[in-house]
Amino acid sequence: METLKQDTSALSLQQEYAASLPSILAARARIQPYAHVTPVLTCSSINAEAGRNLHFKCENFQKGGAFKFRGACNAVFSLPEETAKQGVVTHSSGNHAAAVALAAQIRGIPAHIVVPKNSPACKIANVERYGGNVITCEPTMESREKTAKTVQDETGAVMIPPFNDGRVMSGQGTVFVEFLEQVPNLDAIFVPISGGGLTSGIALAAKALKPTIKIFAAEPMGADDAAQSKAAGKIVTLPEVNTIADGLRAFLGDLTWPVVRDLVEDVITVSDCEIVNAMKMCYERLKVTVEPSAVVGLAAVLSHRFQEDPRHLNCNDIGIILSGGNVDLDALWTSISQSIQ
Amino acid sequence: METLKQDTSALSLQQEYAASLPSILAARARIQPYAHVTPVLTCSSINAEAGRNLHFKCENFQKGGAFKFRGACNAVFSLPEETAKQGVVTHSSGNHAAAVALAAQIRGIPAHIVVPKNSPACKIANVERYGGNVITCEPTMESREKTAKTVQDETGAVMIPPFNDGRVMSGQGTVFVEFLEQVPNLDAIFVPISGGGLTSGIALAAKALKPTIKIFAAEPMGADDAAQSKAAGKIVTLPEVNTIADGLRAFLGDLTWPVVRDLVEDVITVSDCEIVNAMKMCYERLKVTVEPSAVVGLAAVLSHRFQEDPRHLNCNDIGIILSGGNVDLDALWTSISQSIQ
Repeated sequence: METLKQDTSALSLQQEYAASLPSILAARARIQPYAHVTPVLTCSSINAEAGRNLHFKCENFQKGGAFKFRGACNAVFSLPEETAKQGVVTHSSGNHAAAVALAAQIRGIPAHIVVPKNSPACKIANVERYGGNVITCEPTMESREKTAKTVQDETGAVMIPPFNDGRVMSGQGTVFVEFLEQVPNLDAIFVPISGGGLTSGIALAAKALKPTIKIFAAEPMGADDAAQSKAAGKIVTLPEVNTIADGLRAFLGDLTWPVVRDLVEDVITVSDCEIVNAMKMCYERLKVTVEPSAVVGLAAVLSHRFQEDPRHLNCNDIGIILSGGNVDLDALWTSISQSIQ
Repeated sequence: METLKQDTSALSLQQEYAASLPSILAARARIQPYAHVTPVLTCSSINAEAGRNLHFKCENFQKGGAFKFRGACNAVFSLPEETAKQGVVTHSSGNHAAAVALAAQIRGIPAHIVVPKNSPACKIANVERYGGNVITCEPTMESREKTAKTVQDETGAVMIPPFNDGRVMSGQGTVFVEFLEQVPNLDAIFVPISGGGLTSGIALAAKALKPTIKIFAAEPMGADDAAQSKAAGKIVTLPEVNTIADGLRAFLGDLTWPVVRDLVEDVITVSDCEIVNAMKMCYERLKVTVEPSAVVGLAAVLSHRFQEDPRHLNCNDIGIILSGGNVDLDALWTSISQSIQ
């Protein structure tokens, strides 16, 4: 099976994955009334530093402050009326939680959000701002899953997983469809990778619409499960992760991994110091608020590993997904100060 | 004369000012190959707080990081070839300095920028990044003017004033022409005011293109010369200014003042604390990097003085100029921490 995959064109493979160009285009039509078409920014001084033309797709300006709204909105609006009435549930301490709450609020159905009790106050406030019903649990995956299951059993709410779900992957893939319309001459695209929902959605859309494009994933060295998975040829999980990029601490799922395995050119890892430098560049020169997880793509483009790889010298026009901008400024500053000392 | 002005329609008065709709439209055509059409952002959670629909014109994304490039570019490209060859000169410690250097670099002529020697390193670095010839002087207006005069005498360079100049006012007025195309239903517009170049350019364009629109200027309480000038009916200067908004410390000029006097509805003053709150809102919710001077319009819209004024209840769609995003993040953080303690 593995051999067959490698011999077949990427396009014809799409039927095997949990999402496909048709499901991504359907997602685009479904979320279009609710999601922003996010702008693409450029910056000549950053281009000079990178030696390439960089195009920044600003999902930090998406509803809810991150790309996550696309997948959550597609999943929530995919539900049949009768099912939707029971509400939705998810467990997350980050952008997916707020995205599900917002999508449910727009559809007018209940959203139950299970949140570890050590989550930052600002993240919980985001969920509550969008009318989500916050349920706290212990800060372990076991407690999160058990609490969510209880909510499901009690309310009949439907689980909206953060990434390992065809509807969510399809929603995230809409980023690329939009991006290619805005910048048709993209040679490569850099995507932050965590659970792989965004990367797999984008890769499936990209390889169908422009098969020559190179898809790079970027992740922190302190949470390099995707790079290790690519190297091992199977999903690798880590006993612990350690990075400033709080949105990139999840591991690949069984639906996202096959896409990453087959369609992603390379996974480039970057240090927290490189992440902080890329953030500073985004704030000071691109003039946008981004969260640490959002800038790993830029950090990867600027890295020696990419810059000096002769195979990639012809990547002139590079798309970079700035995935989100939800930060607690005070907390961010403290963590940056600590990480650069 | 004053009585006559008040009796005549705003439109017919424009011939009396240093800029006019025709000069603004000519500026637009002149700078169009070089300047960005900046995006307009909206944010539903800020709208909820303001009780109005706010449209943010993001001049922080302009070339050089501020609206100043429009006026500098128009002035530099207005020069006849023979004159331009001699180069340009200005004295400034802020965004105008970098804007003139960048415009001159694009035209391929020398730019001599006189900079007070206590200017922040990042501002000087900006000028140098754009190829400007930095000449330091003592941190007094007298030394700035004298040094600039010496440069003029020695090189034949043309002075590009920061605001009190018809070419500069016309360039700044292009912000409004663009903005109205992007958001035709604007009822009012809020503009940060310092020397009055941006406010007067915008007011002249606005009153010509949409006479019913209300123009509000906003400034810090600690540098409220424009509000005092409006109250006194003549230009008032202050013995000292004290505000976090370092770009709003200049006083009105004899070319900008008549426009502010005749066409600006009101000047609303805001405290440094209101400025910091508005900045935080821009960073955390609108996801943009702005400098303190850029957010006085937002702070003014949110102020009791505006919100509770019955004359302005019908201002539903409000345009806010975010004038620039050039900040030294480390220095900014320190000054914010001090100002909110």
